[in-house]
Amino acid sequence: MTSLHSRYTDIRNRTTALAAPLSPEDCQAQSMPDASPAKWHLAHTTWFFETFVLEAHEPGFEPFEPAYRVLFNSYYNGVGERHPRPQRGLLTRPSLAEVLAYRAHVDEHLQRLLPTLARNPAQCALVELGLQHEQQHQELLVTDIKHLLSCNPLQPAYHSAPPPPAAAALPLQWCAFDGGLCEIGHAGSGFAFDNEGPRHKVYLNPYALASRLVTNAEFAGFVEAGGYRNPALWLAEGWDWRCALALEQPLYWGRTSSAWQEFSLAGLGPLQGAQPVVHLSYFEADAYARWAGARLPTEAEWEVAAASLPPQASVGPFADSGVLHPQAAVEPGLAQMFGDAWEWTQSGYAAYPGFQAAEGAVGEYNGKFMVNQYVLRGGSCATPCGHVRASYRNFFPATARWQFSGVRLARDL
Amino acid sequence: MTSLHSRYTDIRNRTTALAAPLSPEDCQAQSMPDASPAKWHLAHTTWFFETFVLEAHEPGFEPFEPAYRVLFNSYYNGVGERHPRPQRGLLTRPSLAEVLAYRAHVDEHLQRLLPTLARNPAQCALVELGLQHEQQHQELLVTDIKHLLSCNPLQPAYHSAPPPPAAAALPLQWCAFDGGLCEIGHAGSGFAFDNEGPRHKVYLNPYALASRLVTNAEFAGFVEAGGYRNPALWLAEGWDWRCALALEQPLYWGRTSSAWQEFSLAGLGPLQGAQPVVHLSYFEADAYARWAGARLPTEAEWEVAAASLPPQASVGPFADSGVLHPQAAVEPGLAQMFGDAWEWTQSGYAAYPGFQAAEGAVGEYNGKFMVNQYVLRGGSCATPCGHVRASYRNFFPATARWQFSGVRLARDL
Amino acid sequence: MTSLHSRYTDIRNRTTALAAPLSPEDCQAQSMPDASPAKWHLAHTTWFFETFVLEAHEPGFEPFEPAYRVLFNSYYNGVGERHPRPQRGLLTRPSLAEVLAYRAHVDEHLQRLLPTLARNPAQCALVELGLQHEQQHQELLVTDIKHLLSCNPLQPAYHSAPPPPAAAALPLQWCAFDGGLCEIGHAGSGFAFDNEGPRHKVYLNPYALASRLVTNAEFAGFVEAGGYRNPALWLAEGWDWRCALALEQPLYWGRTSSAWQEFSLAGLGPLQGAQPVVHLSYFEADAYARWAGARLPTEAEWEVAAASLPPQASVGPFADSGVLHPQAAVEPGLAQMFGDAWEWTQSGYAAYPGFQAAEGAVGEYNGKFMVNQYVLRGGSCATPCGHVRASYRNFFPATARWQFSGVRLARDL
Amino acid sequence: MTSLHSRYTDIRNRTTALAAPLSPEDCQAQSMPDASPAKWHLAHTTWFFETFVLEAHEPGFEPFEPAYRVLFNSYYNGVGERHPRPQRGLLTRPSLAEVLAYRAHVDEHLQRLLPTLARNPAQCALVELGLQHEQQHQELLVTDIKHLLSCNPLQPAYHSAPPPPAAAALPLQWCAFDGGLCEIGHAGSGFAFDNEGPRHKVYLNPYALASRLVTNAEFAGFVEAGGYRNPALWLAEGWDWRCALALEQPLYWGRTSSAWQEFSLAGLGPLQGAQPVVHLSYFEADAYARWAGARLPTEAEWEVAAASLPPQASVGPFADSGVLHPQAAVEPGLAQMFGDAWEWTQSGYAAYPGFQAAEGAVGEYNGKFMVNQYVLRGGSCATPCGHVRASYRNFFPATARWQFSGVRLARDL
Repeated sequence: MTSLHSRYTDIRNRTTALAAPLSPEDCQAQSMPDASPAKWHLAHTTWFFETFVLEAHEPGFEPFEPAYRVLFNSYYNGVGERHPRPQRGLLTRPSLAEVLAYRAHVDEHLQRLLPTLARNPAQCALVELGLQHEQQHQELLVTDIKHLLSCNPLQPAYHSAPPPPAAAALPLQWCAFDGGLCEIGHAGSGFAFDNEGPRHKVYLNPYALASRLVTNAEFAGFVEAGGYRNPALWLAEGWDWRCALALEQPLYWGRTSSAWQEFSLAGLGPLQGAQPVVHLSYFEADAYARWAGARLPTEAEWEVAAASLPPQASVGPFADSGVLHPQAAVEPGLAQMFGDAWEWTQSGYAAYPGFQAAEGAVGEYNGKFMVNQYVLRGGSCATPCGHVRASYRNFFPATARWQFSGVRLARDL
Repeated sequence: MTSLHSRYTDIRNRTTALAAPLSPEDCQAQSMPDASPAKWHLAHTTWFFETFVLEAHEPGFEPFEPAYRVLFNSYYNGVGERHPRPQRGLLTRPSLAEVLAYRAHVDEHLQRLLPTLARNPAQCALVELGLQHEQQHQELLVTDIKHLLSCNPLQPAYHSAPPPPAAAALPLQWCAFDGGLCEIGHAGSGFAFDNEGPRHKVYLNPYALASRLVTNAEFAGFVEAGGYRNPALWLAEGWDWRCALALEQPLYWGRTSSAWQEFSLAGLGPLQGAQPVVHLSYFEADAYARWAGARLPTEAEWEVAAASLPPQASVGPFADSGVLHPQAAVEPGLAQMFGDAWEWTQSGYAAYPGFQAAEGAVGEYNGKFMVNQYVLRGGSCATPCGHVRASYRNFFPATARWQFSGVRLARDL
Repeated sequence: MTSLHSRYTDIRNRTTALAAPLSPEDCQAQSMPDASPAKWHLAHTTWFFETFVLEAHEPGFEPFEPAYRVLFNSYYNGVGERHPRPQRGLLTRPSLAEVLAYRAHVDEHLQRLLPTLARNPAQCALVELGLQHEQQHQELLVTDIKHLLSCNPLQPAYHSAPPPPAAAALPLQWCAFDGGLCEIGHAGSGFAFDNEGPRHKVYLNPYALASRLVTNAEFAGFVEAGGYRNPALWLAEGWDWRCALALEQPLYWGRTSSAWQEFSLAGLGPLQGAQPVVHLSYFEADAYARWAGARLPTEAEWEVAAASLPPQASVGPFADSGVLHPQAAVEPGLAQMFGDAWEWTQSGYAAYPGFQAAEGAVGEYNGKFMVNQYVLRGGSCATPCGHVRASYRNFFPATARWQFSGVRLARDL
Repeated sequence: MTSLHSRYTDIRNRTTALAAPLSPEDCQAQSMPDASPAKWHLAHTTWFFETFVLEAHEPGFEPFEPAYRVLFNSYYNGVGERHPRPQRGLLTRPSLAEVLAYRAHVDEHLQRLLPTLARNPAQCALVELGLQHEQQHQELLVTDIKHLLSCNPLQPAYHSAPPPPAAAALPLQWCAFDGGLCEIGHAGSGFAFDNEGPRHKVYLNPYALASRLVTNAEFAGFVEAGGYRNPALWLAEGWDWRCALALEQPLYWGRTSSAWQEFSLAGLGPLQGAQPVVHLSYFEADAYARWAGARLPTEAEWEVAAASLPPQASVGPFADSGVLHPQAAVEPGLAQMFGDAWEWTQSGYAAYPGFQAAEGAVGEYNGKFMVNQYVLRGGSCATPCGHVRASYRNFFPATARWQFSGVRLARDL
């Protein structure tokens, strides 16, 4: 119980700390329908605990403010109405200060209730789901703020960060895997989201994965070779999308007369060639792979490879490092599998065999999004340490670019 | 010169005072492309003085922040690039505090320069134009905040206001005018916008204007008689617009099971039947007039009538009263011509005979908008006292509803 | 009566003759929501006679096909439902042959009824309205087919036409008018649409009109001087529209490496410099006039000038010539006032003082369109001879380009 | 060779025969961007033979009309430019008669060349690809015409068809399959599209498939139970789509006061309860399966089951029967696997392990569409007999409704 208590406190405080460098104005704005205001993330994660834990299990529960039930509901039809997503940026009331008071109120009530909840495994699981949910929103808070700041011609920084070490990219090597009849999906007793199971058998042909992520320098080669002008490299829908938006380079890249620049959470700076390319859509990742004579991995290929790594492999450049930007690979062998950048796979986001969504509103967490999205694996530099694992499935539409999403190449053997 | 100095100080302070009840969050958000954040209004009005007065006339001028030249340019192509209007709400930097510092900086420089400017009539005229411009944005700040707050399900109030006096509507009377060969347009030496001139002759048939504005109770009669469901009452384009948006009532009206309610800057409350109906589009105003067996006045009819009023008639419920809501007419005769609500006319916004826009960027002020807009006359409860006059021409597209826009009926004699 | 009979026959046959060069496929397609298929024009004009004349006045009337009442209703809410305008091109049934049979059926019934109708002035007026309506659709049939054929990369011709006479443009002269208190609007006993009256007084300052229309060569000068790239020449809404569509030249103009080309109903050919420029939007016409140091005329200025012309002036290059393309002016003095090209005026389309729409569905003919459109005067090379007059008011939105719309310059004196 | 010759002749003639009941107008119109005019299908299939066979292999080849290379290119970037898809319905020239002449010309040339081509397996394969391509467009021609006719308020019929036999639906049974390590993908020497290979291993858990397709009566039960009003049954994206379009029932269903009706190629008639429901989107199919306590099959589950059927099973109600509407199942056991209705699977359309697109323009046939689409299996009542097989993969976006697409339920064992 103590551990759940301190874990609750740590994770909740971490969210507030992420918002600390931001002004009330920064926390208010919503830069696009896909993104949410930081204030909304602060409130919605609190709403999750209030609605699914306190309201359900606290004797004599009273809502902090009844209207928040609608205001801060994201997409749970089972909970009732919800404020339209594209209009989250219009909720100037409650203020940031009031939302922080809401957080403090719910934290106080929940911490008081924790000893009781701790005696009930189902209730513990609900608190743990709330914490995992909070960690997901920590990452979104970071990527949403990055997008918002990038829309400002002043190109303001979220924080100052030390200049990255001058690193040369490691040569790309191919790591071979036998495939055959394998198992993927969550196993064991630790936390996992429902979409990671059931564990099940898949058959894989022999394959190889690149030892590291594609770098900025490699991707710049694709750009300079006309990769964005050649329809033969693109999926048809991706090509139409690229043409409609007249895209010529990854999100956050810019060009001076002499060099590439990149906007990061530390502001505008020269593009670092050895660092992994990020903020790619599925379409760009797929086109690059085709140009490079390779392909994207499937999620099963990725997971089987990741599961073979020693546990310490997952101690990587996660959000906790504070840098919030991917770093050049420094170790030979299968590197950068966790942290740095989410890795697009060619796998559509679908139910595993035997998957059943949970009953009730919590069952809306994952299953209802299983269409027209693609799976990404491994976590990023904005993912909280300890949040991901080999079986973890992230998912976004093929056009999404504002996450720290990159590419690891794969090929048949 | 003293008078210009104190006028400058008064008007500039009035803008800041209007924003005083608002939080940084309130000042940040933009509820629709037609509206701007309060912070943007505070900055843009300052930009106007910095760009057109200080930059042009201050020896040794240095910009407060060079990037503001683009950020806070509204629509002056002559000044160069501008930040896209629909993205004003994404400028979380500069903060509200920084914008207030920008105001203080420009005020200090301008006030120091005023004695010099005061010796030059053209430069005085430029300062006066900046003040008139500032007053226009004071009104927009109020209507934009009203729209923003209305988007929040909490329906928050901007201020608390005393309950309106319980008033019965005055009976509607018809005030007759002979017409004939008249003159309209600005005459004399006081300030006027370029679009108010040249003064010129128009020929009018005999006509009558209603003695007061159409009331909420009268407009509720139109709604309840099926006015929003009968295409025979509407202009064809208005009908298509109404159907596409499924409109059934004026903006800010709502219905409980038993009664109409209205959202105002004091929050949600019962609709006051004797008060003028506001927040109508041209299409709704026109449909109402047709239903009532009347028509909208032309701008010439309105101006000839307004010019016949004694000067004190213009001391009405303007923004300075602090109520920011129209009030029931209390005087017989031609009432409510100034203040309360802008009055839609049937006149398209067009150049007067002989109109020439000024040279340079300031010439973009009015002339380039003379298409597909309709003229409104008389000022509203959100207009600063002393800002309007009989020849004043406001203009909005036929679909605009978020201004304090109402109807005065007219008919032929 | 004989005259109405032969007039009916002539006009109805003329419509069919216009469609004679077209295949069933040509008559089927609808190139944009603003345009209608030729087959629809053939049917709708017939529907007008069937619905407003036969159904109302023929003893024992039976509809040719009851479903046509909805299919071929354009915009008369008073008649009931109507097929959505953008989907007219999907009505492959009835076939062209069936529509021609529908025409023959209604013609036969109407011609049989004409002797009876001829005894009743109101019924005669209704037949005359139907004929005037038919003539309007003759022009639309021509402009809609031109637009359709222009969308085909084969650039097919509607007809073959003799090459235009090699003409040099006449020098542009200014024709002065005194203005003062004038009268405009239809007078006399001939046919006029309701929107042409009542006749009323207007006051005009002294003004001058250009002696002829702006030519292709003159407009090419505007294009080549960067007219489409300079926002200072454009109305703000026009500039946004131009940018959104990336317009660089008039509709139907194209450019080879060495010269301008123009698509006409005779196919693609070199642009004729001395001919009037056509297919301009209001925005382009207005920008050109500003560039040329002039302005568009008001409709009153135009009408007062046109009314001063001797009657034979109206015998010009109308649709009856068969050329369906404007021709270079050949006469000095105020030329090309009728025929050749509709002339944009700066006047918004609005009700004349005292205007009242007729009762019933026929009252929807004109009045309900009096918003956000601009008046054009004088008729074009696609207008039937005898259809226009000095008081005739055509109207289109400021963005409309597919009519034969040109510019005559005006200026103050 | 004789066999290829007669097969060429038969298939080409079959396309023309499908268009025979249609007028030139019917063949002209395009009802939506996803559909094409019948005339375009007639031309594009001919273009395929002209471009990929004649141009490549005919000595002294001359194009029938050079402009057709662009006009009738569907999506082959490798061939060069193409006419925009949404504007196919504007190509009134060439006429239907000219397109039929184009067909005759290409047929004549190709038939003359066939003996030469027959000696070269690669060239034979190209001709066969063209024939398979033609058969795919035969089906699209039928579904596109059905959609077009459905847009006409007259609800015209494509053909008259005998009333369906009065059939009672067979009870739904579950057919069990062991799963395990299976193989799917095309095997053997017959024709298959590139997306059907390589054959590869997949691991399946034990599962059951419904013995027949879901019927209209069963689906009406879903509708009447509020299936279209309950978000818990829908994928989130599907629910948003349903709400935006206000869908309440399958495409082509209508309701009189007393009963359901269905529009078919024979016109409007009562819905036949025992017939399979068709014209479902993936979203509707998925929601129905969830409501029914089941799920959609994967494409591997479907193929393994289909491969177990005796060969004669594939003799079903294909397009060749002329009925062009699905029929009630009449045989117990695993019925309706081929013909009747395409069956939505839950499988995203993706490359099989080891898939490589062909070189050159023909390689654009399938691979570039492998994103955001779902696989359908088994062919429909509009599919030519002999065209499908167990490994055949059709694919459409999740919103597509105008194909004959239905549902077979699956469940885990």
